[in-house]
This record gives sequence, structure tokens and C-alpha cells, in this order.
Amino acid sequence: MRLIVQKYGGTSVGDTERIRNVAERLIETQREGCHVVAIISAMAGVTDNLIKLAHEVSPHPTERELDILLATGEHAATALTAMAVNARGGKAISLTGAEAGILTNRTHAKARIANISPRQIHELLADDYIVIVAGFQGQSAEGETTTLGRGGSDLTAIALAGALNADACQIFTDVDGVFTCDPRVVADAKKLDEIAYDELLEMAGAGSKIMQSRAVEFAKKFGVQFEVRSSLKADTGTIAKEEATNMEDIVIRGVSIDRNQAKVTITGVRDQPGIAGRIFSAISEANIVVDMIVQNASIDGATDISFTIHEDELEQAKNLLAPVVHEIGATRLMATRGVAKLSVVGIGMRSHSGVAARLFDCLGEGAINIQLISTSEIKIAVVIDGADVERAAQLTHEEFGLATLMPAVGSMQPLG
Amino acid sequence: MRLIVQKYGGTSVGDTERIRNVAERLIETQREGCHVVAIISAMAGVTDNLIKLAHEVSPHPTERELDILLATGEHAATALTAMAVNARGGKAISLTGAEAGILTNRTHAKARIANISPRQIHELLADDYIVIVAGFQGQSAEGETTTLGRGGSDLTAIALAGALNADACQIFTDVDGVFTCDPRVVADAKKLDEIAYDELLEMAGAGSKIMQSRAVEFAKKFGVQFEVRSSLKADTGTIAKEEATNMEDIVIRGVSIDRNQAKVTITGVRDQPGIAGRIFSAISEANIVVDMIVQNASIDGATDISFTIHEDELEQAKNLLAPVVHEIGATRLMATRGVAKLSVVGIGMRSHSGVAARLFDCLGEGAINIQLISTSEIKIAVVIDGADVERAAQLTHEEFGLATLMPAVGSMQPLG
Repeated sequence: MRLIVQKYGGTSVGDTERIRNVAERLIETQREGCHVVAIISAMAGVTDNLIKLAHEVSPHPTERELDILLATGEHAATALTAMAVNARGGKAISLTGAEAGILTNRTHAKARIANISPRQIHELLADDYIVIVAGFQGQSAEGETTTLGRGGSDLTAIALAGALNADACQIFTDVDGVFTCDPRVVADAKKLDEIAYDELLEMAGAGSKIMQSRAVEFAKKFGVQFEVRSSLKADTGTIAKEEATNMEDIVIRGVSIDRNQAKVTITGVRDQPGIAGRIFSAISEANIVVDMIVQNASIDGATDISFTIHEDELEQAKNLLAPVVHEIGATRLMATRGVAKLSVVGIGMRSHSGVAARLFDCLGEGAINIQLISTSEIKIAVVIDGADVERAAQLTHEEFGLATLMPAVGSMQPLG
Repeated sequence: MRLIVQKYGGTSVGDTERIRNVAERLIETQREGCHVVAIISAMAGVTDNLIKLAHEVSPHPTERELDILLATGEHAATALTAMAVNARGGKAISLTGAEAGILTNRTHAKARIANISPRQIHELLADDYIVIVAGFQGQSAEGETTTLGRGGSDLTAIALAGALNADACQIFTDVDGVFTCDPRVVADAKKLDEIAYDELLEMAGAGSKIMQSRAVEFAKKFGVQFEVRSSLKADTGTIAKEEATNMEDIVIRGVSIDRNQAKVTITGVRDQPGIAGRIFSAISEANIVVDMIVQNASIDGATDISFTIHEDELEQAKNLLAPVVHEIGATRLMATRGVAKLSVVGIGMRSHSGVAARLFDCLGEGAINIQLISTSEIKIAVVIDGADVERAAQLTHEEFGLATLMPAVGSMQPLG
């Protein structure tokens, strides 16, 4: 009998009507002759509300207690889903992360999975139960509830699919799959049938937040194939897998864009060990997420360092950096709002030269100025003016033939 | 070192400001040189909301899953309370009912406590923790989460106080204690310093819903003294205990009233075995709570049966009973809305005769007609017209000298 792991995010169980729909889909999947394990997130909004309450009682909530608090969101959603299955004539039972056998280290709030002992799940499946597992959580060896970090239900699903040796792992979400570009920006963007883990990782880091990156890394490490698909339609989605040989024929899988970015440049930075550390510790202590970092070769013992952050955090970053700039004897701090990042991603880049040149030429012909460039093995990212980003995405999408290239073409549709 | 168990209900932790106040009180109690164990209910409204969600996904929610769902309310409140204590420089840790060692039978939704193993609590107290325990819940021998029924946090507190051999058990609520009568009805009603378990039980059953009856029964069975007091003031409240010898000097401890009752009378009921059962099974199957039941001696093989229910359930009861009245060959079904019940309670009744006569005379002198009478060993209850109930309470309170009688005088203040 096939064993299918299905993961439903917070939006898919956002109200009781949607929970009833999920229950229906679980029963249908079982009726098709499958063993079914469902991973459920907290109902949309619940986790944010619990975090708000925690911060009302404490400026720095005790991590142990915060994990217990947040885990209740998934406990409630799994219990409701199990009730809904039972109410429709199915046979379901809910399990906490601990009961599902998910053992983690003791790092509260961002625990890492140490081991999975799915004995109880196997027993319940053998008794024809649909097993509903609380996502996002586990238990330390000391018996303490731990959580896996934001978006951790993806990780629960993929790790359980691996441990159960499942025949399929389906990540249900509110998009149809992974696209060559956001269809709202590029009208002829195509849904991809397949994507390599590495491509999905680069895209997840490039503004297309379909999956928790740690979950994709875990899938890659243990070779767990999974499918990203819509919880609202019956259509198949996009399968994430290790790269296949023919995948390299596709130079670029997709184009991602990140809007509302700000660019910060510090000029005249002395080229000495420890200086960059001083700059970025000041920012990371305030939990400001830095995206691209670019440093050029130094001339006369001094260099410029640029990086991008979200526009909303620019004021705070400027205030934090002003004394640092003075302290390290740099020349100036320059900040630009309203920029955007455009990334092209594809494992085919490894074997095809000239991708960067094609991208830069294409943007240049469109009179789009490139402000920063950063590359990884399978990604090229540029910072451009925010006003240009849609046109840049359309030009790039066309340049690399993403709407027509076969067998599998494209990029990711952001959730936001 | 003294060990104090404190229980805070849903209103006392109804928002994060109140949770911070509870945290402050816990820290103060510890600073006074006590070991502190706090039992916390779900934040006000949370349990009702969870029940609503459950009924939206299922007409008959699976009891196992409903217990898991409802238990999350207390988990969240205990975690928030522990965070609040820690944020104010205290040292607290939250425990689930299972972690607190509360072992129950496997009857979901209304589990009975089988055993308590508070080893972990003792260890944490020895490490100077303020131990915050989730009320209302336990765990079966099979490791399943169970709940103790509505108001079960009272039971958790009293059972833990007994198992821990606590020096004091304080039930914090939004009233100042147990009163000789509702102060909104009788202006000179007095707060009682002491009350016997039996008196509190009869009062709890007579409309003064300060405590879960099962909790009081448990306290009586195991001799756990406890104090009902206000979470908003520093004043002492009312101590519930086994009767002391001098308690019998007080004839009547208090006057309770129940408004919005309805009286149902079935006349011409054949005096045969099984007939009363037919009547009341029809009603109990619809979960209508019947309060007083009165049946007179039969004349010529037929009798009348009367009982009281809440006014809101009268229509449903009439619909259910109409076919039954026909089936058992009774003469008539009569129903009266807008009646009220007045009860006088006191263990002193056992040794003082003439209490009933004094009550009836006093009401008669006030021209208040008595429609039904029912008595237990320490309670006399009468049904009267709802319009008369406040005056009846004032007359009765005066007749038995409840405002002036020393050492301890009175009745209970309803929460509603």
C-alpha cells in the first residue's frame, strides 16, 4: 500500500470550513488506497497572536515557555482536523510532535531534528488510521517541547516522509506550484513540472518564500522528493528532486524578484581584518536581515562595502551604523531606498558559460542600470531601481525563453 | 518552609495585564518565604471559543480530540504566566497536568483523578521554582490527555494541595469570598470567615456557583481546607473546612437564590414503578438540567410530580414531555415561568428544630406564597414567584439574624 505524507499550512486550515475541506481530501486520499499521514500547521494568524501575547507579558519571553505556548497552535489544529475527519466517517487520530517520535536537540525556538522514531505512526497506519501530526515541533531527550523555527511544518513533513520511507510527500499551499516567474509580473510565466533542490533553495533565498529553506536542505541531504501543490485544486504541482541529467539542458529555471529593498554603501573602509565583522554585528544584533553583501577589491588600502536590507529597516540600520562608521574611520554612509533585486536561477549555469553576459546585455538594452551584482554557482542577482523591476523581469524571462523552453521551464511564484 | 497552592481562574488571567498581576502576586508570595504552586485556568473566553470551533468541524467532536483541543487553553495560559514571572525577575516553570503527575481514568471530558505523583513538583520547588500547573487536565495510564470537566481547575488545585500536603490552598476568584447572601440583593450581607464543606456544596447546588461541586466533594473526602478569596484585593476570604463543633451554634449559614426558573407539574400520574423514570429520561436525554423534584403522596392511585428547570429550557421540555404525558396516561402538563428558588443552608439545622417553620412563617408574614418545598438534611428550598425573591431573601436574612450573628454568619455571593 502506498504511503503518502501531506502537509497543510496555516492558510489551508485557516478556518473551520477549510479544515473540513482538508479532512475531505485526507479521506479521499485514503480511499484511493493509500496510508495517509498529514502534517498540520497552526490556523493562520494563531501563531502571530500567541507571539503578541508573549511579548505583552515579557520583553524577552522564556524560550522554553514560548515553545510550549507556540506548540499549542498546532495541537489545536491537529485535534480539529482529526475531529473533522471523524465527523465525515473517516478514522483519524492526532499526535503531537513528541508522540510522532520527532526527537530534537534542546535548542528552543530553532531546534534541529536529531532522530525520528515513527513506531507509533506505523502502528496507527496498520490500524487504518489517518494520522494527523502537529507540525513545527518535537521533543528533546529531556522530554521538553521544542519548536523547529518559523515554517517548521515543512521540515516536519519532509523529515517524516524520509523516516517513513513514504512514496510521496505533498506540500499543500495556496499557490499552484513553482513558476518561472511571478505570473502577476510576467503574464506567460509557466508552472514548472520539476525543480532541483538547489534551484529551489536559491529561489527561496531570492524572495520566493514557498518553502522553509531548512526543509529543502533536509530534503536534499536525505534525498526526499516532494511536490509543492495547491490545496484548492486537484492539479499536480511542481516536484522538487535531485537534479536529473537533462535538467542541465535548461540554463535558467526561473526569475525571482524582491521588491522594497534598500541599498547601503559604506565607502573608504580600511582593508583590515575584523572591520566587516564590526559593521555586520551591529546590524545582526538588531535582528535586521542582510541579504546581498558586496565588497570590491581595495584600492590604496581602502574599499567600499555595500549590502541590501528591507526598506522598512533602513532607518534603524542607519542609526545603528552611524557610530560604527565613525569608529572604524570610514569615509561615508550612503543609503538608497526603493531598489529591487532580480535573480536568475538555474543549475544549467554550471555547464553554460555566458549567462551573466546575456543577463547584463539584456538589461542594458532595456536601459536598466545595474547597481550591484552578486553571484553564486547557480544564481546571478542584480540590484536595480525598483521602478524597473517588472520590465526587467519580463525582458529576462523572454531573453532566456522561459515561457517556451521545454521540457521544464521557469521560476517561482512568490506567496506574498 | 510553608507550601502554598494558589488557583487562578479564567477571569484572573483574562488578559495579559491580569497575567502580569498574577505573576506579581506569585513572586510576592514566594518572597514571604513560601514554596508556591499555582494552578492556572485558560484565559477567559478561550475554552468557549475552542468548543465553538470543535462544533463547527463536527456535530459530535471525538472526545479524545476535544480533550487535546481544550487542554491547549491551559497550556498557553501557564506558559504565559511563567514567562510573566520570569520577566519580573522571578523563577518559574510551567507544567502540563501530566507533568504535574495527575493521573486520571480514561473517561475523556469528565475524567476522575486516580492518583497524583508530584515528584517533579517537589524537585522543582526544592530548586526554588514557582511551579505553574495547567488546571483542568490530567493524563490516563495510556498517556492520553484527559480533562476533568468544566471548572476542573478547582479540582486540580484541591487535589494537588492534598497530594503535596500544602499548608494552604487559596482559590482566587472575582468575588471576595462566600457571603450570607448576594450583597446586591441584601445590603447587609456579610462575608463568612468559615463555611463547612457540606454547606458550600448545598450552596453550590443552589445557584451560588463559586466552586465546582466535585472539587468541594474531593476537599471534603480528603480533608483539604481551602480559602475562596479575591484576586483583586489583599483581603482574606472564606475558609472551607470540615465542620467545627461551634459551627452548629449557627443555625443558618446563608441564603441562596436562583432566578429565572420554571416549574413544571404533571398531574394525575399513576402511582406505578417506572413512570417517573419515563418522565425524567425524556428530559435528561436532551441535557436539560432538572433541579428540584417534588412528588406528593398519591391519592386514589394517582399523584402529581413537579420539578424545576431553567426558564430557557421550558419550551423544549414541554415539547419533549407532551407525548410522554399522553403515553403514561397522565391528566395534564402545567408549566409556570418566572419562578425563583430560595434556599437556606446551614449544618446547624441538624441540631435545631423548627427552622422550616420559622422560614415558612417569615415568608407567610410577608405574604409570599410558597409553590413547592424540598428539603435536605442541611437545606430547605422553596419555589416562589420570581417577583418576590429579593424581598423574600431580605426577610429571611433578617429572620435568621445573618447580618449580626457571630462568630461566623451567612451565605454565598453568586458569581453571575
